[in-house]
Amino acid sequence: MKLRVQKDEILPLLAAMANIANRRPVQPILSHLLLRSTERGLQLVASDGEIQLRGELELSVEEGGQTAIPARKLYDICRTLADGSEILLHKNGERLTLRSGSARFTLPTLPAQDFPIMEERAARISGNCDGEDFQRALAAASTAMAHNDTRYFLNGVFVEIGEQKMRLVATDGHRLARVEIAFAHSSDAEPYHGILPRKTVLELLRIVGSGDIAWSFDEQGCRMQQGSQEFASRLVDANYPDYRRVIPVGQFTHCIIDRPTLKTALQQIDVIASDKNPVCTLHFQAENLVLRSRNEEQEEGEISIPAALHGDATEIAFNTRYLLDAQNIFASDELLIQVRDSASSALIRTQESDNPLYIVMPIRL
Amino acid sequence: MKLRVQKDEILPLLAAMANIANRRPVQPILSHLLLRSTERGLQLVASDGEIQLRGELELSVEEGGQTAIPARKLYDICRTLADGSEILLHKNGERLTLRSGSARFTLPTLPAQDFPIMEERAARISGNCDGEDFQRALAAASTAMAHNDTRYFLNGVFVEIGEQKMRLVATDGHRLARVEIAFAHSSDAEPYHGILPRKTVLELLRIVGSGDIAWSFDEQGCRMQQGSQEFASRLVDANYPDYRRVIPVGQFTHCIIDRPTLKTALQQIDVIASDKNPVCTLHFQAENLVLRSRNEEQEEGEISIPAALHGDATEIAFNTRYLLDAQNIFASDELLIQVRDSASSALIRTQESDNPLYIVMPIRL
Repeated sequence: MKLRVQKDEILPLLAAMANIANRRPVQPILSHLLLRSTERGLQLVASDGEIQLRGELELSVEEGGQTAIPARKLYDICRTLADGSEILLHKNGERLTLRSGSARFTLPTLPAQDFPIMEERAARISGNCDGEDFQRALAAASTAMAHNDTRYFLNGVFVEIGEQKMRLVATDGHRLARVEIAFAHSSDAEPYHGILPRKTVLELLRIVGSGDIAWSFDEQGCRMQQGSQEFASRLVDANYPDYRRVIPVGQFTHCIIDRPTLKTALQQIDVIASDKNPVCTLHFQAENLVLRSRNEEQEEGEISIPAALHGDATEIAFNTRYLLDAQNIFASDELLIQVRDSASSALIRTQESDNPLYIVMPIRL
Repeated sequence: MKLRVQKDEILPLLAAMANIANRRPVQPILSHLLLRSTERGLQLVASDGEIQLRGELELSVEEGGQTAIPARKLYDICRTLADGSEILLHKNGERLTLRSGSARFTLPTLPAQDFPIMEERAARISGNCDGEDFQRALAAASTAMAHNDTRYFLNGVFVEIGEQKMRLVATDGHRLARVEIAFAHSSDAEPYHGILPRKTVLELLRIVGSGDIAWSFDEQGCRMQQGSQEFASRLVDANYPDYRRVIPVGQFTHCIIDRPTLKTALQQIDVIASDKNPVCTLHFQAENLVLRSRNEEQEEGEISIPAALHGDATEIAFNTRYLLDAQNIFASDELLIQVRDSASSALIRTQESDNPLYIVMPIRL
């Protein structure tokens, strides 16, 4: 194999690939990158056994072939080369030589045929959505994802597809986020649901860009194509809890509040909250929302911000950090906070729409 | 005590003070800040028992007094207030209330008289230097400071004063940095030397700004005044090794090299170096300096950069990271590297001057 590639073209691909390849894998090949010459240029594949990313660069190949080389090392080398550099890759026997300017690197390779390419399955549902919409929705929903929960399915994001929509839901048992985006699929498709694993969520947040995304989902995995990159992942093999039961229904007190003002007040009150148990009480009053917090050092804080109340005054304690996280989910200037009584959860949305929707459970003091 | 202060005026002082105050001190008072009203305004003092920082703000005091309050908490609260805010501090009984806009915080206090102000001693030598010169020199010298060495005096920076110069030296036994700056002192003063502890070095790097610094040193401590802030520190009670013995003298091979080119080459070769043992061999050749490295994964790198050699060709192995650190010490575009043979240290300086001076010991392969 022998070919020339521009640093500036290969580097973004290598960055994404190096993240996916496993640094200390059980199988050494999973820390490697598969390089394969094609008719149009060079194909690169990285995999950790659960997630796979494939990319392609158009270039003219001097000598065809394929090999597997250490992903992180190739990325680190290319990163230190000057912008605009040309890189010559040449496989000779078991070793790959990389030359650029006066620098020369030699790396050992592994046989390309050992690289575990994920098999393609028949799609249960396929369709398209906008990349930026998806990125934003996934970032918002994943805010409520659990972390290291033994209920491992809570560490990911639940995906529901149907009625030309993709719905992303996450909950860690203390709060829940739900976001919907448009998703074009064939009208006779059955509704679908699955769970994206945590690492898949984090990688998608990194690699999805603007432009259309083509998706296909089956019972065990999903596959997404955007531009020349193709991403595939296994799904979590579990049932997601029925999140709809957490969404409160009925009569409510609600208040309308300015989001940036709420953010500042929460940041201020959070200075008083203890790190282990960051609690603040929200006092819903006729014309104000009052935030109060105190800690075991006898420090106290109280902040009052304007809010238009509809319904009865009440007070409820929440985890300050979970309330602050609403800032990751909403972009609008105004928020609507809906509660029932001192033991109820808070439902956060905008006046106009319940998409996105964020629910924070109360803390019993 | 009752007074009003502008957030933007007090915040930079609080930031420096919160760094110095101990977060989990044996004596609770050392996590506190001393606030004292003076004739001109408000004096603030922070201390960790070894280092003390004193600052002053001009303002009109409504009600005089003094107290000690949690340093980090006061900083964190002020940080979250909007820029341009006015802060009202009011001590009432044992508690201090802080009000700003619609926010109110109440903090417990400790008695001001319990705060351990460091006593002032008669100076052995005093004098002045430029703040930016000192900052730059200390940053350069401290690059070679040891970290967690049982020879605890190596974890600091050695200071020598005499002949209208201040000389800063640090070594961790593997490399040594020496930087001199102008220091105006009375002509009949005896030469002086002492060791700045590591934490003192790091705090000085943070707080010293541009403008003149007035210093006084005694056998146990040093004191520095810049603008309205006064910094005091104990010194390390130990003898520093005779660093002059490490500086090679005699006939040498040397090469002149472009610093940015060397930096890039070292960064590139460092990708190959193993993390535990980052070694590269420098091959001093007639018109080139060739850097070579290999690791236990059988990966190899070689980079050749132009260099003008004066003397005999030779090759010496060094720790790549120590060579890279030369970039923190020198600002000039050209460096002079002086070596003797394959077992000699490298002395790095510029053609014009041996200030700064950096010495890196060789690695025997």
